[in-house]
This record gives sequence, C-alpha cells and structure tokens, in this order.
Amino acid sequence: MKALVYHGPGKKSWDEKIKPEIKEQTDAIVKILKTTICGTDLHIMKGDVPTVTVGRIIGHEGVGIIDEAGSSVSNFKKGDHVLISCITSCGKCEYCKKAMYSHCEKGGWILGNIIDGTQAEYVRIPYADNSLYPIPAGSDEEALVMLSDILPTGFECGVLNGEVKPGDAIAIVGAGPVGIAALLTAQFYTPSKIIVIDMDDNRLNVAKTFGATDIINNANENAVEKVMSITNGKGVDTAIEAVGIPTTFELCEEIVSAGGHIANIGVHGKSVVLHMETLWSRNITITTRLVDTVSTPMLFKNVQSHKLDPKKLITHHFRLDQIVEAYDTFGNAAKEKALKVILTN
Amino acid sequence: MKALVYHGPGKKSWDEKIKPEIKEQTDAIVKILKTTICGTDLHIMKGDVPTVTVGRIIGHEGVGIIDEAGSSVSNFKKGDHVLISCITSCGKCEYCKKAMYSHCEKGGWILGNIIDGTQAEYVRIPYADNSLYPIPAGSDEEALVMLSDILPTGFECGVLNGEVKPGDAIAIVGAGPVGIAALLTAQFYTPSKIIVIDMDDNRLNVAKTFGATDIINNANENAVEKVMSITNGKGVDTAIEAVGIPTTFELCEEIVSAGGHIANIGVHGKSVVLHMETLWSRNITITTRLVDTVSTPMLFKNVQSHKLDPKKLITHHFRLDQIVEAYDTFGNAAKEKALKVILTN
Amino acid sequence: MKALVYHGPGKKSWDEKIKPEIKEQTDAIVKILKTTICGTDLHIMKGDVPTVTVGRIIGHEGVGIIDEAGSSVSNFKKGDHVLISCITSCGKCEYCKKAMYSHCEKGGWILGNIIDGTQAEYVRIPYADNSLYPIPAGSDEEALVMLSDILPTGFECGVLNGEVKPGDAIAIVGAGPVGIAALLTAQFYTPSKIIVIDMDDNRLNVAKTFGATDIINNANENAVEKVMSITNGKGVDTAIEAVGIPTTFELCEEIVSAGGHIANIGVHGKSVVLHMETLWSRNITITTRLVDTVSTPMLFKNVQSHKLDPKKLITHHFRLDQIVEAYDTFGNAAKEKALKVILTN
Amino acid sequence: MKALVYHGPGKKSWDEKIKPEIKEQTDAIVKILKTTICGTDLHIMKGDVPTVTVGRIIGHEGVGIIDEAGSSVSNFKKGDHVLISCITSCGKCEYCKKAMYSHCEKGGWILGNIIDGTQAEYVRIPYADNSLYPIPAGSDEEALVMLSDILPTGFECGVLNGEVKPGDAIAIVGAGPVGIAALLTAQFYTPSKIIVIDMDDNRLNVAKTFGATDIINNANENAVEKVMSITNGKGVDTAIEAVGIPTTFELCEEIVSAGGHIANIGVHGKSVVLHMETLWSRNITITTRLVDTVSTPMLFKNVQSHKLDPKKLITHHFRLDQIVEAYDTFGNAAKEKALKVILTN
Repeated sequence: MKALVYHGPGKKSWDEKIKPEIKEQTDAIVKILKTTICGTDLHIMKGDVPTVTVGRIIGHEGVGIIDEAGSSVSNFKKGDHVLISCITSCGKCEYCKKAMYSHCEKGGWILGNIIDGTQAEYVRIPYADNSLYPIPAGSDEEALVMLSDILPTGFECGVLNGEVKPGDAIAIVGAGPVGIAALLTAQFYTPSKIIVIDMDDNRLNVAKTFGATDIINNANENAVEKVMSITNGKGVDTAIEAVGIPTTFELCEEIVSAGGHIANIGVHGKSVVLHMETLWSRNITITTRLVDTVSTPMLFKNVQSHKLDPKKLITHHFRLDQIVEAYDTFGNAAKEKALKVILTN
Repeated sequence: MKALVYHGPGKKSWDEKIKPEIKEQTDAIVKILKTTICGTDLHIMKGDVPTVTVGRIIGHEGVGIIDEAGSSVSNFKKGDHVLISCITSCGKCEYCKKAMYSHCEKGGWILGNIIDGTQAEYVRIPYADNSLYPIPAGSDEEALVMLSDILPTGFECGVLNGEVKPGDAIAIVGAGPVGIAALLTAQFYTPSKIIVIDMDDNRLNVAKTFGATDIINNANENAVEKVMSITNGKGVDTAIEAVGIPTTFELCEEIVSAGGHIANIGVHGKSVVLHMETLWSRNITITTRLVDTVSTPMLFKNVQSHKLDPKKLITHHFRLDQIVEAYDTFGNAAKEKALKVILTN
Repeated sequence: MKALVYHGPGKKSWDEKIKPEIKEQTDAIVKILKTTICGTDLHIMKGDVPTVTVGRIIGHEGVGIIDEAGSSVSNFKKGDHVLISCITSCGKCEYCKKAMYSHCEKGGWILGNIIDGTQAEYVRIPYADNSLYPIPAGSDEEALVMLSDILPTGFECGVLNGEVKPGDAIAIVGAGPVGIAALLTAQFYTPSKIIVIDMDDNRLNVAKTFGATDIINNANENAVEKVMSITNGKGVDTAIEAVGIPTTFELCEEIVSAGGHIANIGVHGKSVVLHMETLWSRNITITTRLVDTVSTPMLFKNVQSHKLDPKKLITHHFRLDQIVEAYDTFGNAAKEKALKVILTN
Repeated sequence: MKALVYHGPGKKSWDEKIKPEIKEQTDAIVKILKTTICGTDLHIMKGDVPTVTVGRIIGHEGVGIIDEAGSSVSNFKKGDHVLISCITSCGKCEYCKKAMYSHCEKGGWILGNIIDGTQAEYVRIPYADNSLYPIPAGSDEEALVMLSDILPTGFECGVLNGEVKPGDAIAIVGAGPVGIAALLTAQFYTPSKIIVIDMDDNRLNVAKTFGATDIINNANENAVEKVMSITNGKGVDTAIEAVGIPTTFELCEEIVSAGGHIANIGVHGKSVVLHMETLWSRNITITTRLVDTVSTPMLFKNVQSHKLDPKKLITHHFRLDQIVEAYDTFGNAAKEKALKVILTN
C-alpha cells in the first residue's frame, strides 16, 4: 500500500509500505476513505515531536471501512464504515475507567506517533471496539473527519473545561482550526458574547461568519483594552487559549474576570509566566487537557441533528496521493486561507 | 389607585384601592408599566390557593418605575425602570445565602399571595435590592415581563434541574406557557431532539415553530410508543413535566431512559403514583422546584444578546383597566390561542 | 464441583455440578475462596426474581483465585487473587462508557441471575478485565467480600446519589446490611448528624456503635416528630431509603427538608405514593440506582488506608459446604443478630 | 477605647482611639471578646500591603458581643454573641448573589485593611446581617475565632477548590496555620493519603498528630521523589499550595498527577513559572481563591458536632492589651512553636 512517511526533520514522502495486519485480536484494519492533516503533523515534520521516529506513517484522523477485525472485536465487522478517534482507548485501565482516554495506559495519542497512522491506504487500529465509532449509512463522511480530533479537542479542552454557560462572555485567543472548533461548539451553551482574537484578518472574518459576536486583531488593536470595553471592565468568564505560546497565554491571564476560567487548548513548547501576584486572590480556574474524545458520541448526535456543521471547517480538497501538495497548502494556512484539508483515498 | 382584587372563588373586580406606602426601609414602591396574568392567578380565582384571602390584589409579574425607595435601598432610586421578580428575597437568611430564594424565610412567593401584587397601578416590593432588577434604557420592556416568572420557571425547574445537555433527547409534556418557556430555554444547551407532547394542535404547532424537533398529540397518538420510536427504544434523557396532573407525571415515568431525569414544573394538587417497582433499578433522578429566579440575570443577558426572544410568548395585548376581559381571554387559552397576555398601564 | 442450586421457590441444595469453562476469550474462571449471601438471594429463593430459572447456581459476591484466563484477558493471569464485582461490565458499550455498568448491554447484574454465580467452588466471570479487581498480597480477603456488592451499593445509591456533604443532617431508614453500608460510607463526607431509623433495637444499637449520632425505633416512636425535633423542624438534607417498601419511602418524603434529597437503595416490589401536592414546591431531588460498582477502586483504597473497616459487617462464619445452614441463619437475621455471613471454600 | 494601630512599616502601638459608631443602618458595633493575629497582619506590619494606611486599626478575626445594631439589621440585637467573618458581604451585589463574597462590590476583605479592624475593644461591622454569624449559648468561643478566617480559608481555597475526594492522595505544601487548617478540613472527605511537606520538623510533627499520613521535610529530603514513591509514581490527586512563593508552587506542578488539581491558598508577591510545556497535556486544574467564607455555617455545624476541633490550632494565649508581645511571639512562629494565638479582651 501507499502511505505518507516521515524521514526526519523536513523530509517526508509518499512511499510504498507493507499493508498492516492484525497483531492482537482486539485490533481492526481500516481501509482509509478520507483523512486530513493536523497542526501537530506540521510540528512532527519539523522534528519537534521526539516520540516520532524515522520511518513512521503520520496521521491520526480519518474515516474508513473495516477491512478485517480481530476475533475479540465485537462492535464492528468487515465492511462497516467507521470514524477513527485520534485517541486509542483500551477500555479497561484505570484511566479509561475514569473516561480519561488521553492517558490510557496502552493507548492515548499513539496513532501517527508511536505506531503507524492514518495518512495511508490502510491503518491498524488497536482496541477497535473502544477507538472507533460506527457511521450510519447516509452520513456525510467528509464532515465526520472533523470529529476525529479537531472538534472534540476544541470542545473538551476549550468549552467543557472552560465551563462555558448560557449568558457568559467568552474569548477565544487564536482563530486557527482548533480555535474555530471551540467557536462552533461553544455555541452549544449559548454564551451572550464570543470574542475572537487573532492577528489574521481572514481568519477573524471567518470567525465572524461562524458566530463570533466581536473580533479583535491584536496585531493592530489593544486586545486587553478592547475586551474590557466589551465586558464593562470585568473581563471574560472564560478565556480559551488556542495558540500555545507564552504571549497568548498571558493575554488570557489579563482578560479573565474574577471568578473566571482560562481553558488551555494550545500545545506549548515553553513555560509561561503565571502572574500569581495578581491572580492569587481572583478566584481563577486554569485547565489543561489532552483531548479524551469522550464527547465524540455527543458531537455525532449534534451533526446528525444539524446543530453542528463540521463542513464549515473544510477549505481544501485533495486526492490522498496528492498529500505532499496538501501539506504545502496547509503549511501556508494564512496565505492559502486554509482551515482543514480533506484527502480522499 | 386602581387594582384587580380577589373577592372569593369566582369573584374579582377592578377596584379603587389605597396606594401602597413604604413600610420598611428596604421596601420600594413601583409604578406598574406592564404586567401579565399567570396560570397560578387562574387557580387563585377558582379558590384553589388557600393562602390568598379575600381583598387581596393579585399578580406577581411586571415591569415598572421606582416611585419611592426606602432609605436602606441602595441599588435603586426614584425613576429607575425595574423588572419585578415573582420571588421576594431578603438576601440574608439561610435559604437566600444558598440561592434558594423560593424558600426565603421572609419572602419567597408572597406577591399577589400573602401581600398585595402587581395587577395594580402601584405595588410595594419588600427587600427591593434583592427582588428587583434594573432595566437599561432602550430595552423592550414588554418582552422583559416574561422574565418575572415564566422564563426562569421553565428554565430553572425544567431545563436546569433536568440537566439538559448538548446532544440530549428531551421531551416536554405540556405546551402551555411554562412548557413553551422550557422549550425556548432548553435550546440554550443544544439538545439534538426536543419532543413536545400536548393535546392541543395549535399549541403543538406553536412549539414546532419555536424549535420542537418532534410533536405528539397524545389525545390521538400513543405518546410512549412514539417517543420510544424517536429515541431508538431508549426513552428521553430528560422528561419535563409542565402540566401538574398524575397522568402527565406518570407519562414522564414511562418515557424517561435509564440514567435519565424527570424535571417537574407543574403545580400539583394531588399525589401521583411512582412506579418504584420498575424505576428502582433505572438510575433515575426526579426533581421538584419552586422557581428561585437565580437565573434572571443570565436570562436578561441572553435577551440583550438576542439569543432569547421572550416576545414569542406574547399573544394578546390589553390596557391594564381591561384586565377583567384579559382574564377571560387567558382563561380560554385553547380557544383564544393565548399564551401570555400583556397589560399596559 | 459443588454449588448451591436453586430448584424453584423454597427449594435449594448443595449439588454436584460441572466445573465452568472459558466460553469467550474475555472470560476468566475463578476458584472461590470466600463468598456470602445477599438479601437478594433470599428473594430469589422465595421465587420473587423471575429471571432466575430452575437449576441456576446463585450468588454474586466473593473473592477467589484466577484458575484460568481467556486469551484476551490482559489484566489477570492464573494464580492472581481477585475481588468479584456483582456487576459485569463489557467496558465497550454506550452504558459502560458512561460508567453506568449496571446497565451494560452485555452485563449488568447477571451473576447468580441469568448465568451461574459465586456460591460454588468455581465461577465463570465474563469480561474479566472489567469485572474483577486485583487483590494485593497481604490483604484481608474476608473483609473485601463486602466490596462485591454491599458497600458500593450503600455508597453509590445512598451516599453519592444522596449528595451527602460535610455538616449535613442525614437519615438512613433501615439498618439492615445495606443501610449499615450506607452508614459506614456516609462518614466519608463527615455529616454532622446521622439518624438511623429501624424497628429492631439490636440493629439500632449496632448502628449507634458504627457512627449513628441518633437512633429511632419507629415501631414505638414517631419517627417524623423525632427527626423534626433533632433537625430544628427542618428535616434532613438527605433521607436514604434502605428497605424497599411504600411505608419507608413515604417516611422519607415526610422527613426530607426543602432543598433535600431522597436517595433510594431499597429493591421495591410495588409502586409508592409520591406526594407531589406538597413536594412540587420543595426543591426535592429523588434518585434511584442499581449499583454500578464504579466506586470499588476508591473503597479498596479506603480499606487499605484503614479509613473503612468492612469487617464490621460480618457477624457469622461458615464453611462453603455449610451454605444451606448459613441461609437459615441469614434468613433469620433479626433473631440471629446477623448482618453478613462469610462462607469459606 | 484601646486598639492596635499601624504607624507605618515596622511601627505599631496599643493606642487610645475613638470608639466606633454606626454609620449606616446596616452596621453593627461589636465589643470584642477574643481576637487573633493573622499571617497577613505580619505582612501589613512590614509595609507589604499598600491598601493599609498609617493610623489603621489592624485585625480581621474575632468573636464578640453586639453593642449596638443599626435599624436595618434584623438578624442580630444588642447582647447577641457573634462570630466576625474576615470577609464583609453586602448580600445584594452581583458577586454576593453568586456566593463570591470575597469580591463583594462594597465589602470583601476590608476589615483591618481599608476600614478599622478587630484588634481593638470595639469594631464597626458593615452589613452586619451578612457579615456576622450568631453564636449559640454554651459554645467554646475561643475555638470559634478560628472560623473567622483560617479554617474557611484552608477549606475553601485548599480542600473545596482542590476537589478532595474519598480515597484520594493529597499533598499539602506548607504546615503553617493555613496548611494545618487545610489538613484538618481535608479529612472531612476521607482521603486515603495526606502528605504534608514543610521545612520545620516541629510543624511536621504537629501535622502528623493532626492526621497527616506522611510527612516530608523538604529541607533535607527530595520531596518530588518521596511523593512519587508514596503514590506509586503517579503523583497526588490534589496538591495544596499553602506558602505563597515560586518554589513551593513549582513543587506542586511537579507532584500533581495527570488529571489532578493544584489548589493555591498562598498569598503570592511574585509571578511563578508555569511549565505548560509539560502540563498542557496532563489534564490539570489550577485554582486560586480569596476566601469567600461561604463555608462558615457548615464549619460551625461540624464544630458543634465535634467533627472538627479548631482548638488544636491555638498554641498561645494573651490578654488583648498584651498584643504587642503577642505579635512578637507569632512573628517568631518557628522558634516559639506558634500556630495561632488568642487575645482575650
């Protein structure tokens, strides 16, 4: 089969690889129908993720068809259409029992990281019963690719952890794909104000179309002052960090109201300064989270009932064998006005 | 001044009464601008509410202008436009400190019950600082009358207590004003299915327009079978009882799923049969509540941000001095296709 | 092997049966070391549980040693000492993912019910990885038998569902084994008053020794009056029903305070009268639950740290082959002053 | 009357001052019976709290007798014995309605800060109905002084915010008065392990006596290694920071388990380094809080039911006119083995 292979920092190619096989009876082999590229994949390609070794097939998102199921797999059979979760869950360790699948003792984020991933014609999914979701006939499978990672990440790390409530004023710092995912799913809770902050006017305009009540370009506006003006000087009930750098995290510290939440989504490479000298007395809650994908069934329901339209996130389409070109487009997201790309096998 | 006075079962009139005065320095006198009639007022008029004595001025909803404020009132001054809460809260008893204002030791539901109410040109509001809400200039005050009782009741007793969550399937039994209030505010949490059950086709059609995904007329359809068919045989995550009779409560017992909620809003005059022989093992939560009006500030925000449109509930308008006629209309709600009436002073 | 077999209402015997074998690769065969008898087993023996058919081996509690593990079992191997949960969990259905194991689509309460149980020399445990717990060397295995059912039942259905909090006044109606289990585990949350109500003075005295602050014999005292006197006329924050008959449930309705909880543990055979005509406005929460055994790992930790002493519940010891005699003792609990019996293989 | 007055950094004296008078009808004048000194008072005396101006009477803790009550005070009358809360609450602003009294728009921490405090023969308490608690006859009033600040602070900021649960492993970093208050109240939730970390052996031994299961002197032991060894390499479910310096906060970052909580109590003067490069994916919750004193009624109940013994915190006694000497003792806490001192008027 063909697959996208990481050959070290800056090096990748669309190679011939051996088709994966069942290793444990809880595995399934899935033929990929649709996949996509994640911001994390760009980090991997730069050599920033040390757990990814040379020769690895990348990718942790996608939908496909069961090609073969191990004898202990009971929820799926050959021919079933499935959504692949970016998080693998064994269903029987201490963390899985607490619904903290991200920290599964035998799973977690392993796809396209420490085992081969989904940017390939076939992929082996361990613990298939707990790591795949059935797709009913007639579903829009392209839209569902957004449920592998980006939507549960924006929702769980940003919206759920941020405890967004009806009537709240919230801010989302960063209007990339995961910030937009937070924007779409925050509306499940009907906040009264959703302020989106970014330095790219195109993304801000997209955010406005998708439900932002206010947008701030912090390349040329004072974000703190503007947030305070919108919130009568109080700050936001929830500040969602969707970038992953010290500056944006510290911006969240400045715009959160007394009693409010900072919900981190961003993947950070450095420590940040936490201003405890002001925050200690402000009754603040700060959360971090690697997505657990516990919300996938709920997101699925809201896609089916048309309360959530994940297609909004898709800006570009490619054939799977054009994936190197797709990486170029996604890697120049600002210039290409790209949010998420779809690769069809 | 003029006011609507209860003269015993079946007897009421628009009478001359003495204008109320400040009794405690925490009181305010409010000149009524707009008021309405509640289903509870119809019960009072039938003689069903023994705490209401002959001579009482009825009514517990409305907006008005501060005519006079006691010396200990600090949040309001003469001329301020205010929303009157149906629940009076002293702000300093054990229950008020737990945000359970409905059980305030000196307040609770007293307006138009054990003290004179709002269907009058003026009303005395005890503990004004905790029982009134400021109305900003430019607000639609007619819409805000719906925030005195009906919207917080539907929201707190039905939606909040029922723990409605994104993706849930819920049912609302009863499409009268309070059921419709639950329907409007349940959408704050983006359930995937909202089934409304009633015996009046007009009300069901209104419900459909206001966001119901499914409607069932249980005068001529088997509601249990239809709910099970809509929910793949599981039943609803939350069943909201918005009628107040044994039949509808027991219907909720039949349609709630394992792990689900029954949230009672209805005012009951009789006991109901609780089928513990089937429910004991089904992990069900049943809640009752007299509205606390703790959600009024949030509802206010969502009205201002156009996430909630309370005017949808208003079907008829009268001058305040036409109130006896308004009672006739509201008392024949099905025939008159009435939800809420507005009385303007 | 030998096992206790149900032969129809009133008939049971200690019979020779075929030793169970692995049927699915997720099964384990456990050699029983210690088991016990549950109140539910007495109901079965009377013929009250229609799912139990003639020829069934009874029992759903116990500790043992893994005799054989299916090839897909990864948490356990031959020779491991294990605690058997009364609830079987597949770990991969919709309910298991919500930690509602009691309603597992392939499990739930099946042991000694629709498949053979633990009152035998060997038992087959389906989905062993999710239905057994490892016992570290040096543990008191007799005490741990109390964690199969009685302690998680008292804790989850009574204490957790009842939301017992520090400082609360609570009442436990029924001082049988499950009421005592609620009494022991309620103390995890340090309520200020724990009132135990029963008609058996011996059990009440036991309750007093185990931490009850007040006891009421409602055979000869007015329980409602006495509870009101203890709670300054307010009633209890949480009333735990641990009997399962209409009288005791209705007693809970009378003693619960405004804003309080009724947490049902009892197995009910009949409907009860729910006094909605008084409860509708009292902000009450009523819960039902079949134990999910999600709290077993926590209970294990608190046994190991000596915060919980389950041995207190054990009053009688027998050899496993004396089980018919043990049933007689447990069946005359009041006369024999029995709480839980231990049967040793 | 006499009072302790701040005269600038390092300068204080026991001076003659004018007895306070009712300014607003919601005020009460309280004659002090017992008071104490807080760690915050030491900071004030060093000049570290810029809101405290020269001439201010210090102190925010104590019990006393109502000497005079304003006409709008309804919960108290002359002669009533009362507990003074360190937090003043108006009961009618947005924050008070959310039970976030620490941020009350007209109150919060004002006593002995921006208005005169309790280290005096008399003190004026604004909003007396919401800022005082009645003391029943026969109570141990000395013990109750611990409920003005130290116990609700340890409980709310450390234990409640840290979401301590039965079976948890927790660590308390800092065994000063507030750390010990967290230690005493954490036991309301029956954690299985309570590790206390400090650099003073005396305080650690006190902690051991008061319920710590493990103690670590991090002056001469590697706290991270030892915590990991006690918790099987996982870290603690909750790390409570009770010091207020960068080193101890960062220690909490290192010892918290995946999915765990860092609950800050310490008053910080500097920013800390937050290691988001490791924490971003660990599902951590960090909280800050200025005590709201919402738990005072619960703490009161648990003192009365002997579930909490606040006297354990009291190590030294003085007459109120010996307060300068008492400051010396409390200021040399390590040498004097002092936790809390009591000053009797």
